[in-house]
Amino acid sequence: MSASHQIALVTRLSDEAEAEWLTLLRAALPAETIQSLRAMSQDDRADVDIAIVANPDPKDLSDLPNLVWVHSLWAGVERLVAELPGFTPPIVRLVDPQLARNMSEAALAWTYYLFRDMPAYARHQSAREWVQEPYRSASSVTVGLLGLGELGAASAARIQAQDFNVIGWSRSPKSLPGIDCLSGDDGLEDLLSRSDIVICLLPLTPQTRGLLNATTLGRMKTGAGLINFARGPIVDTEALIKALASGQVGHAVLDVFDQEPLPAESPLWDTPGITVLPHISGPTDPETGAQVVAGNIIRFRQTGELPESVNLTRGY
Amino acid sequence: MSASHQIALVTRLSDEAEAEWLTLLRAALPAETIQSLRAMSQDDRADVDIAIVANPDPKDLSDLPNLVWVHSLWAGVERLVAELPGFTPPIVRLVDPQLARNMSEAALAWTYYLFRDMPAYARHQSAREWVQEPYRSASSVTVGLLGLGELGAASAARIQAQDFNVIGWSRSPKSLPGIDCLSGDDGLEDLLSRSDIVICLLPLTPQTRGLLNATTLGRMKTGAGLINFARGPIVDTEALIKALASGQVGHAVLDVFDQEPLPAESPLWDTPGITVLPHISGPTDPETGAQVVAGNIIRFRQTGELPESVNLTRGY
Repeated sequence: MSASHQIALVTRLSDEAEAEWLTLLRAALPAETIQSLRAMSQDDRADVDIAIVANPDPKDLSDLPNLVWVHSLWAGVERLVAELPGFTPPIVRLVDPQLARNMSEAALAWTYYLFRDMPAYARHQSAREWVQEPYRSASSVTVGLLGLGELGAASAARIQAQDFNVIGWSRSPKSLPGIDCLSGDDGLEDLLSRSDIVICLLPLTPQTRGLLNATTLGRMKTGAGLINFARGPIVDTEALIKALASGQVGHAVLDVFDQEPLPAESPLWDTPGITVLPHISGPTDPETGAQVVAGNIIRFRQTGELPESVNLTRGY
Repeated sequence: MSASHQIALVTRLSDEAEAEWLTLLRAALPAETIQSLRAMSQDDRADVDIAIVANPDPKDLSDLPNLVWVHSLWAGVERLVAELPGFTPPIVRLVDPQLARNMSEAALAWTYYLFRDMPAYARHQSAREWVQEPYRSASSVTVGLLGLGELGAASAARIQAQDFNVIGWSRSPKSLPGIDCLSGDDGLEDLLSRSDIVICLLPLTPQTRGLLNATTLGRMKTGAGLINFARGPIVDTEALIKALASGQVGHAVLDVFDQEPLPAESPLWDTPGITVLPHISGPTDPETGAQVVAGNIIRFRQTGELPESVNLTRGY
């Protein structure tokens, strides 16, 4: 590799957030020249072979004529893929073991939120009512994971370790120790009909867009809980509001939305039975994220090999 | 043992709840004659050598002239002890492994409630505000357990298994694997000053009444969380309200109160920073509870030996 290679950080983050990433990436990659695209001359841009990106403006990437590959700082890259039709450099997404830990922690935390009836107790408190909800043991409750990638698999294991019954579903058949893994249309119906709590950790693809709609939500157990930590468009919002109103779905925890930030005028903010979270279930930890990115770049410089990149057709 | 021995169920539970316990206890003890005191003749009462009790009226117990010992269906018996001055038959409390499991589950669930900022996100949702709270990893958060009996020890282990730092405090020195166990006045101060979340699982005794008061709450980290799953009078309510108002305590989850049910006119219901729960953290599971009681009674019939009974001076 020529010493004139540079790495560009290309984001729509705040200056402060970019500065934090730059500091951590430079510390982890002392042999590299890393700059924010915002600070680069045209000559610098011609030297860039790797772009590290977070929600980049597509035209910024087209401004890097010698780009070889792209490392996303995010786990979800479907927006990047959608905004870059015809883009050819491989895109590598962040696979940070800490992210799987944080996301599985959120999956467990909000499973407890629903299982231990926290929304009901908040309502009782508002009404000054001393009402004890009936207790069921965790072993009598089934949690269904939609999506068994590294986030879904980590969540399944973590929830199962707390004595819940866990079942899972993925597009293609998978096998996880101790977990009933389903796939296909019949498998989806089976999971939805058996789960007391459904947690969505699927990637957004043409196949998963609108997967949870009036028909599939209607397959759920009456009063079951739904947690969407994946992407907003996987759930048909209108159908969910109807399913909550009818009692088909008991409560929904939504961390992701068709439009983010969720607009202040959205009816979701005060629809009974919906908990709105501002996309915080799987926070990237910049400390550990920078280490993972650095490891991939060092390996590429030494061997010319890339980590598995995103399949642009499949979308993840 | 004479075949004329009987067991009395003595409670202030509803008829339905008594009937459920009677069904389960009779199924678990088919060789015994078990009746509700409400259904017993004077002759029956003279035959009673064992009373199984849940919040009994003290005068009902004084109506059993040949009582040898008492099995409580509850883990906490300090009210029973307080209401029975001069009572001599041994009192055995319920030590149900399922109770420790349910209570440690609640300790973990409400630790997540505070750690994952659920109260803050509920406020943001009410205000239609998309605000992401900063994420700290569990390993950077210290959870302090007050009380290291079977409930405290089970909770400490369970919370530690989810990567939190766990420290504990008890009246007399204890040792638990991997947990920094403190004791004494200095130990209490140390725990309070180091913990981001304090969970109280102490028994109520003359020594623990008012233990968390203006002075000790003032030792806590600014903005730390408090969870009281033990007994209401351990926390000085007025001091807690002041500590919440000043920001010394960030949020309190209270499952127990000086008076239960919490009166509708109590200011606790709508004090900012307080989550009121109706004494649901450690639900007794009648299925498993009846099995534990039956095991103790069968062992007594066979050997004449009692499980360790409550120390009436110590109070637990």
